[in-house]
Amino acid sequence: MKVWLVGMYGAVATTTVAGAVALRKGLTDRTGLVTELDEFNGINEYAPLDDIQFGGHEIRDLTSTLMEATLEHLKLNEHFPLKIFEAIKDDLKCYKAKKGTAINCGSGVAEFKNTETLESEGLTLRQITDRLMRDLEEFADDDTVVINVASTEPVVEFNEEYHSSIEGFERLLDEDRKDLVTASMLYAYAALKLGIPYGNFTPSVGSSLPALKELALKNGVPHAGNDGKTGETYMKTTIAPGFVYRNLKILGWMSYNILGDYDGMVLNHKDNRKSKIISKDSTLYKLLGYNPFTITEINFFPSLVDNKTAFNFIHFEGFLGKKMKLYFIWDGIDAILAAPLVIDIARTLLFAKKKGLSGVIKEMAFFFKNPMDTNEVNTHRQFETLVEWFRKNQ
Amino acid sequence: MKVWLVGMYGAVATTTVAGAVALRKGLTDRTGLVTELDEFNGINEYAPLDDIQFGGHEIRDLTSTLMEATLEHLKLNEHFPLKIFEAIKDDLKCYKAKKGTAINCGSGVAEFKNTETLESEGLTLRQITDRLMRDLEEFADDDTVVINVASTEPVVEFNEEYHSSIEGFERLLDEDRKDLVTASMLYAYAALKLGIPYGNFTPSVGSSLPALKELALKNGVPHAGNDGKTGETYMKTTIAPGFVYRNLKILGWMSYNILGDYDGMVLNHKDNRKSKIISKDSTLYKLLGYNPFTITEINFFPSLVDNKTAFNFIHFEGFLGKKMKLYFIWDGIDAILAAPLVIDIARTLLFAKKKGLSGVIKEMAFFFKNPMDTNEVNTHRQFETLVEWFRKNQ
Amino acid sequence: MKVWLVGMYGAVATTTVAGAVALRKGLTDRTGLVTELDEFNGINEYAPLDDIQFGGHEIRDLTSTLMEATLEHLKLNEHFPLKIFEAIKDDLKCYKAKKGTAINCGSGVAEFKNTETLESEGLTLRQITDRLMRDLEEFADDDTVVINVASTEPVVEFNEEYHSSIEGFERLLDEDRKDLVTASMLYAYAALKLGIPYGNFTPSVGSSLPALKELALKNGVPHAGNDGKTGETYMKTTIAPGFVYRNLKILGWMSYNILGDYDGMVLNHKDNRKSKIISKDSTLYKLLGYNPFTITEINFFPSLVDNKTAFNFIHFEGFLGKKMKLYFIWDGIDAILAAPLVIDIARTLLFAKKKGLSGVIKEMAFFFKNPMDTNEVNTHRQFETLVEWFRKNQ
Amino acid sequence: MKVWLVGMYGAVATTTVAGAVALRKGLTDRTGLVTELDEFNGINEYAPLDDIQFGGHEIRDLTSTLMEATLEHLKLNEHFPLKIFEAIKDDLKCYKAKKGTAINCGSGVAEFKNTETLESEGLTLRQITDRLMRDLEEFADDDTVVINVASTEPVVEFNEEYHSSIEGFERLLDEDRKDLVTASMLYAYAALKLGIPYGNFTPSVGSSLPALKELALKNGVPHAGNDGKTGETYMKTTIAPGFVYRNLKILGWMSYNILGDYDGMVLNHKDNRKSKIISKDSTLYKLLGYNPFTITEINFFPSLVDNKTAFNFIHFEGFLGKKMKLYFIWDGIDAILAAPLVIDIARTLLFAKKKGLSGVIKEMAFFFKNPMDTNEVNTHRQFETLVEWFRKNQ
Repeated sequence: MKVWLVGMYGAVATTTVAGAVALRKGLTDRTGLVTELDEFNGINEYAPLDDIQFGGHEIRDLTSTLMEATLEHLKLNEHFPLKIFEAIKDDLKCYKAKKGTAINCGSGVAEFKNTETLESEGLTLRQITDRLMRDLEEFADDDTVVINVASTEPVVEFNEEYHSSIEGFERLLDEDRKDLVTASMLYAYAALKLGIPYGNFTPSVGSSLPALKELALKNGVPHAGNDGKTGETYMKTTIAPGFVYRNLKILGWMSYNILGDYDGMVLNHKDNRKSKIISKDSTLYKLLGYNPFTITEINFFPSLVDNKTAFNFIHFEGFLGKKMKLYFIWDGIDAILAAPLVIDIARTLLFAKKKGLSGVIKEMAFFFKNPMDTNEVNTHRQFETLVEWFRKNQ
Repeated sequence: MKVWLVGMYGAVATTTVAGAVALRKGLTDRTGLVTELDEFNGINEYAPLDDIQFGGHEIRDLTSTLMEATLEHLKLNEHFPLKIFEAIKDDLKCYKAKKGTAINCGSGVAEFKNTETLESEGLTLRQITDRLMRDLEEFADDDTVVINVASTEPVVEFNEEYHSSIEGFERLLDEDRKDLVTASMLYAYAALKLGIPYGNFTPSVGSSLPALKELALKNGVPHAGNDGKTGETYMKTTIAPGFVYRNLKILGWMSYNILGDYDGMVLNHKDNRKSKIISKDSTLYKLLGYNPFTITEINFFPSLVDNKTAFNFIHFEGFLGKKMKLYFIWDGIDAILAAPLVIDIARTLLFAKKKGLSGVIKEMAFFFKNPMDTNEVNTHRQFETLVEWFRKNQ
Repeated sequence: MKVWLVGMYGAVATTTVAGAVALRKGLTDRTGLVTELDEFNGINEYAPLDDIQFGGHEIRDLTSTLMEATLEHLKLNEHFPLKIFEAIKDDLKCYKAKKGTAINCGSGVAEFKNTETLESEGLTLRQITDRLMRDLEEFADDDTVVINVASTEPVVEFNEEYHSSIEGFERLLDEDRKDLVTASMLYAYAALKLGIPYGNFTPSVGSSLPALKELALKNGVPHAGNDGKTGETYMKTTIAPGFVYRNLKILGWMSYNILGDYDGMVLNHKDNRKSKIISKDSTLYKLLGYNPFTITEINFFPSLVDNKTAFNFIHFEGFLGKKMKLYFIWDGIDAILAAPLVIDIARTLLFAKKKGLSGVIKEMAFFFKNPMDTNEVNTHRQFETLVEWFRKNQ
Repeated sequence: MKVWLVGMYGAVATTTVAGAVALRKGLTDRTGLVTELDEFNGINEYAPLDDIQFGGHEIRDLTSTLMEATLEHLKLNEHFPLKIFEAIKDDLKCYKAKKGTAINCGSGVAEFKNTETLESEGLTLRQITDRLMRDLEEFADDDTVVINVASTEPVVEFNEEYHSSIEGFERLLDEDRKDLVTASMLYAYAALKLGIPYGNFTPSVGSSLPALKELALKNGVPHAGNDGKTGETYMKTTIAPGFVYRNLKILGWMSYNILGDYDGMVLNHKDNRKSKIISKDSTLYKLLGYNPFTITEINFFPSLVDNKTAFNFIHFEGFLGKKMKLYFIWDGIDAILAAPLVIDIARTLLFAKKKGLSGVIKEMAFFFKNPMDTNEVNTHRQFETLVEWFRKNQ
């Protein structure tokens, strides 16, 4: 199979490729891959793990290959052994990103150096989507999936006229209404237009725009999102149900996240951060059925680089009105947690496509912080739903 | 309904009674009661919450009433408002324990002062069980359940001849083989013999002895256990599945528990502690399917009194062999977490009895650390199982 | 001795009075009182612990006594046993606050109900300070100290003309320049004008205004501040030196504080919060000699009430460039930590006065987050300095 | 200067050598070195940092060089960058250990593979010390120090006849009383006999034996110990004074340490662990002046390797009897914390020798968990003492 990565030189994308290559070469094992659990036996027939090819769009360092991008992240994060890198670095040289778009991607993106974008060439929106589609067509075969792992975009105001139908959206492109789009919409449009499944690993709007949902249904393409549920939110949605089952009342839940790296740097910009916090914050209401007091914050902490650390404090009330406490500290490596999910999402979408499914695959909620078309955020129910869906469709 | 509490003057039992009375008087709400969730609508018809009467066995302070016992715990723990105590204290005076047995209950029990037991009167085992049964008969009606909330007993060696059949066990009683029994067996025998449902909230052997399981089936009585899953283990079995679903490998799991109070004092004795640790430790294997390195310890920390604190450290491996960490600290009040479950277990057993069910109610696994007749320890699956069982039988 | 408390019905003030009364009645011990350590033997001769009388200013609930104010805090916080309250409540009824000022105290103060202030009577600044002084004169004897424990005020812009000399400040009063003062200045002015020692337990400007420092010197009055070092900052300044001595490099220090209560509510207002964060944040530079990356935040978390909780994460680098981590969680009760320090500061200031000292007592830095006229913030050096100063002057 | 390391292929020793070489080559900076603080300006004249040569005794893998030993630890711990290792590995090849002794070093040492000891050659004690001295003499010049960084030995029973005087100890050697010695005594004897300063970085008895203290004085040699204060105890002795100064009462202090690696493996043996716990446990009494309830435990946790993690819980009482809590988690790398201290101790001892000092240098308490001849365990006072001592002698 083939995976096209939007944001190909980022920490998540490079780790995804490095991991896939290391797996193929027998240098690492399947730890972290959901689709390699016994419950998903048989998926390999539709989406083989052993031979994944990669392509992607990027807006920075376009003269270098994925090898240099990987090394840059590795130096900062030491997130996998140098020995593995040495053994795969020649393979990584074969992957080179195409120039993409970062239109309306917020002030955070400005911190990147050596950026080039299609819009800076002076192209219209139509010319941009044509270029994206041309790149995709050159790369794709029938077994191709697009995954968006680019930086979080600012929240976009919904525009009834241009965002609610595919007819409106295409008119937006034709009228070159650059004020009404973000890059993730353009990537999602390009993929779905070409009939390629699209997974949105970011909180950006992507294929969740009504217009693009319509396009996916029209073209019979499966898609899924939003925002990969990797670390703290995954823990939250795993733990909170335990309070619900026992009828314990959440008085307050503090989630304080710190991280460095490009991701932290971008999120340090208020406009970019907002999408992220919204994506994280609605979760508790869906789990508990009421709105406890919450603090949900993400802040930049440079020395941590990609070592995302989350401090959670849960204040809860038990029998006879007694207050009690749970603290947890999550000390994870973002790219390491995200990368296998990128592969899982790609495989699952390809499986869906081969089974003739289209539109939002809401049973893939397990992979996302803010899953489309469902309110089920309980990790356990999501996992059961995914397993049942796979069994039923297999 | 009526609930007979073995260990009636302990922290859990007194909090259970205080909570039930406070609820009846509208002084507190239903927080902490599983059976008051929407999922169990209708249970009140079989086991009404509003009118629970209590009796029980005890081995200490037998000249005082449950009021004095409650006050003693309240002074140490301040686990519920003095104002509530003032409002219910006259009700609590009406409850007075009968003299029970603590036979082979370990060196920890020796720390209690003012103890009196049936065995210290020089009675034989048969005379002891006769007395227990007489007390129960005087108290019980058709809507009565026995719950064991006494201190943890030492591990007992299984004896094929006397423990594997009810015939053997009754011969043990007749032959007065005091070396082969513990108190929890005698209480369970008394209850099941009289057809009264029995719930074992402790890790002690209780009704899990094959002989007593046979008796329960023979007499058509439902029973359940072992060891109320209140705090740290509840968290563990809520969190660990999250690692399983994501195919993350647990490298090691440290569980270090500290508590004071009588419970901590008793557990500080090695013989008593052993049952508790075994009960906690087998859990991870059942969840993960493999045995990670584990540390599971419980220690006495007097100033905490009933404020059970658990330090957990989970070392896990993700994609590309990267090690990551989760820490959690559970700062709970043991009696407050346990008391509503005692009521839940009693109600559920009474419901089971009224529906004609007998033997181990393995669908009640949700309430126990070491559930009988099932290997399902995943909190989420246990909850779903309980809900389904209730719906199906309702 | 006599202590006048600005903010007399707040959590800190009421706990101070309750503690002093409980001590006098032998209901509690001297735990928490620095001045009762062996190192300060002899201070009782100058500032006896056993007979402290209290008065104070307040802006809310002026029809009630300190008993009602104490009870209100006790209900929310349960920060000391109801039994002690019962035993002292008649004593507390004897204390009743005088109406004070909250001029320019920020939007947070607006959340209080039932407030009355001198400025709302339409008084000029001169009339206000006259009233404050009249109240003080009626109360004070030679052994009286004023301590400011009112809510944190917004940061005030320094005005060269009116703030830098006592002549300017008194002109400000005469010209009724209400735009240029805050309440804490007026209280400090009133005290120092009357020759009464003044301690500033808050981060508000108080007696640290150059004009008022001049007044203190002129009138020969000792004063001290700012901002009682009670919890997290105390820990920070205790721990950080350990990193300095070992030549370990702090890469980043996260301090995330949450609390409820009136204090949290007021700090939830941006204008009020700013003083607090500045006061906390400059500390690390003074300790380390360089500016590491820091996060210093205080947020409202209502269910915690006065149970101030601080999450600290210290990322540091050791030999060979290796990064390591220290986490600490401080789970303290603000009023309980602050109240004995209020007594300590009052006793120490009275000792200073009796020894003929005047102006800023910079050796009292140990008690403050942002001590005046010194850069010494290392807790250990501060303690040694205080002890030496006491010995030398005794 | 020259440093002889007892336990030369262990994690601490190899990191010490690697760090010293990396420093000399400008590959790393002075972070972690106490003696490079401004307070110790001038020490370089007596004990230059830039040119340290190393030798040592070892009992395992004697056919390999320090390069292989370092690589083995690096693979397990990744405690410094592979890039640094590559740049220094040829230098490390030049260091090769001599065969040493592990006599009565406990069952933990038996876990090592490929061990060879002098006693296994059938030598008498005298022959062993002769060999140790011969090795030292071949290596040493006037600027040489011996540091013991071998594994913790079991506690040894004190023998009045043979342990209390140097005459008795030499008689013990002559009588070959192998039942009465441990390896650390023999190493300390060899060093002190030859007039070489000796630092004991372990909790083993070493030069703290009265006989050897006498020898040091007689031969005019400075020595210091015991047990390098690297991580958790360093934090404890930094934090606990903060409670003392504020007259806060420690109700209980839990210290729960986990680590893997050879060190954890050896400590997992009860006999070896005992010395360590004693060394850690007496500390609080010395700091507080009373004995609070304590838990002090060290356990093996293999996946952590050298990443020593300590969980501390401090339960304390404040004003009005209120209980409060402090939690801290120390996530350090043992060898990284220890290695610079080894260099610091060696430099300080050489400085002491050059200044003509002999016997226990008790002012070096700052470096040790269980400092000889002093009860000062407060980190801050220890640091001040060290600085003053250096200034005075310089």
